Amino acid sequence: MKTVTVYDIAREANVSVATVSRVLNNTAPVKKETRERISALIEKYQFQPNALARSLIRKETGMIGFILPDITNPFFPEVLAGFDREARKMGYTYFLCDTFSTNEETLNQYERESQYISLLMEKQVDGIVMLGGRIDLSRPDPQMIREVEEAARRVPFLLLNGSLPQVGLNRVATDQKLGAVLATQHLLELGHRDIAAVGGYSAMSNTQQRLQGFRSAMRENGLQPRKEWMLQDGFSVEAGVEFTSRLLAMNPRPTAIFCLNDLVAIGALKAASRAGVRVPEELSIIGYDDIQFAANSIPELTTVSLKAAEIGRLAAETLHRMIGKKKVPKLLSVLPELVVRQSTAAVRKGG
Amino acid sequence: MKTVTVYDIAREANVSVATVSRVLNNTAPVKKETRERISALIEKYQFQPNALARSLIRKETGMIGFILPDITNPFFPEVLAGFDREARKMGYTYFLCDTFSTNEETLNQYERESQYISLLMEKQVDGIVMLGGRIDLSRPDPQMIREVEEAARRVPFLLLNGSLPQVGLNRVATDQKLGAVLATQHLLELGHRDIAAVGGYSAMSNTQQRLQGFRSAMRENGLQPRKEWMLQDGFSVEAGVEFTSRLLAMNPRPTAIFCLNDLVAIGALKAASRAGVRVPEELSIIGYDDIQFAANSIPELTTVSLKAAEIGRLAAETLHRMIGKKKVPKLLSVLPELVVRQSTAAVRKGG
Repeated sequence: MKTVTVYDIAREANVSVATVSRVLNNTAPVKKETRERISALIEKYQFQPNALARSLIRKETGMIGFILPDITNPFFPEVLAGFDREARKMGYTYFLCDTFSTNEETLNQYERESQYISLLMEKQVDGIVMLGGRIDLSRPDPQMIREVEEAARRVPFLLLNGSLPQVGLNRVATDQKLGAVLATQHLLELGHRDIAAVGGYSAMSNTQQRLQGFRSAMRENGLQPRKEWMLQDGFSVEAGVEFTSRLLAMNPRPTAIFCLNDLVAIGALKAASRAGVRVPEELSIIGYDDIQFAANSIPELTTVSLKAAEIGRLAAETLHRMIGKKKVPKLLSVLPELVVRQSTAAVRKGG
Repeated sequence: MKTVTVYDIAREANVSVATVSRVLNNTAPVKKETRERISALIEKYQFQPNALARSLIRKETGMIGFILPDITNPFFPEVLAGFDREARKMGYTYFLCDTFSTNEETLNQYERESQYISLLMEKQVDGIVMLGGRIDLSRPDPQMIREVEEAARRVPFLLLNGSLPQVGLNRVATDQKLGAVLATQHLLELGHRDIAAVGGYSAMSNTQQRLQGFRSAMRENGLQPRKEWMLQDGFSVEAGVEFTSRLLAMNPRPTAIFCLNDLVAIGALKAASRAGVRVPEELSIIGYDDIQFAANSIPELTTVSLKAAEIGRLAAETLHRMIGKKKVPKLLSVLPELVVRQSTAAVRKGG
């Protein structure tokens, strides 16, 4: 039997869903005759309003603030989508606070974060989720830390992936170092020894963790990364093009490139294609993140999945428990996963 | 001289930005001594709070609801980013209401729209922007129309790209038909006569308008589109792979494919690569939308820009005027633009 929805009730009562909602929530007056007609239908079908409608009935505010650095970077919408699906089930809506890290304005990203934190407190949200920005800095300004600490004292505050030094906030995070170890080991198993690592920002802890993973996997195989093949400070496609073009002009040059995110890897594919270097025959390229487009590039990108949607889902679940004052682990760790596609292959003999 | 920001004031006063904000907005008590220290610094630097801070001072609610169908489809974050940049300047925040058109759940997309509309009314937002979903249907259910009409009577309601039959709501829209004419003419000028048109959904007005543009440009050149080369009902990369694989197995087969969005075009590139068909030498592919990844595919995708960020920016500007009860045109039309990259080329003689 088909489940009866608010929509069916509205249709049969010949009113709008908004009107049915008003009757369910008792939020605004509805004509007596109309209300009775709707109530009769609710009775008739033993209608169970879904979670979203139920939360309206309970009159929770149900608002969450979600601070992220750049919605046009495809990694973030994927985290958000996982979060949204789960949060919606539980009846939450959210403010999206995009700090536009890539946008050129006088106002900088960290200041926008400050403004949003302060704004969300004023809007009296039930909880705040933060992804990127200051929580990815390895040495954030003490003032930046204090602000988050202060907010977290007043409202459940959850950090995704990043962290803040010396502040014991709740976190959901993928193991960044392990992801880099997986990527590097994959290249090593294919016989590569001449491996470059490009992308990321030296001042960001996610970059440092990924490079630690890279170095430690190399060292375990008795290899020392070459300094001139470690090109940092950039997470964009353009940066990937630029780093890879530089690598391809070097002598000797690497047989494989570990890119610190997929956008950089897509740039690497582009630079290789421009230089007439075949991937993976002459050059292996591995990314990091597993954004949707990793599967859509030609060749399809081998990468490490950071489980974006799963981080988002766990974030919603955890924040909901925090709002309900239930116990949650300080750190929920998500395991990254190697995704082998077409951009990596065994090193060529004498290559 | 560097502009003094809330952040600098906070640092020099040795307090959090939240505290400076509280002083600026007078929203919560701040210790007299602290308040005076902050006020002195504001005085000293002749500090001008930015738009966001100003709106807090004016105590507007400043909340907008933004309903869209799928944040993981890269077209939508780009519209949203253009909207956000402009809306933030004017001090608005917004609820993001993602109806997850691609998600398999009992609850369908249109019902989620209904719920969100009703929720946003209850949250007393200053205005609502709607993109995709029911406003892209060529024949929406009368009930769906009524709901939007009812909401629009209570709060400024702006439709992006879509429309609702017989309802005179304010709109900001790119000319969908013209975009398709531009794409088709580009292929015709390259000498193509055997052109396929794939992607879209027959029940959606955007698809119908794009196909009208395609047909009319073909007819103006004395050409009749072949029915078997018109493959619809799909807007995803996977759909593009599937449509193109079918086309490439036909005899005769087209020399060019007009894809109704960029995701479908990226799928087409993938299918061509798998079949060993070289793009653009043996097959020209043109997309539609100009998402970021259009410039990142190999070869880079020729496409039609729908000016996503510009639509978003105009939406914020227009909604702000509507909220301020100022006059706005019923329809603000944005002109699409042909973006020639690498995936199209002159038809091969005897090809």
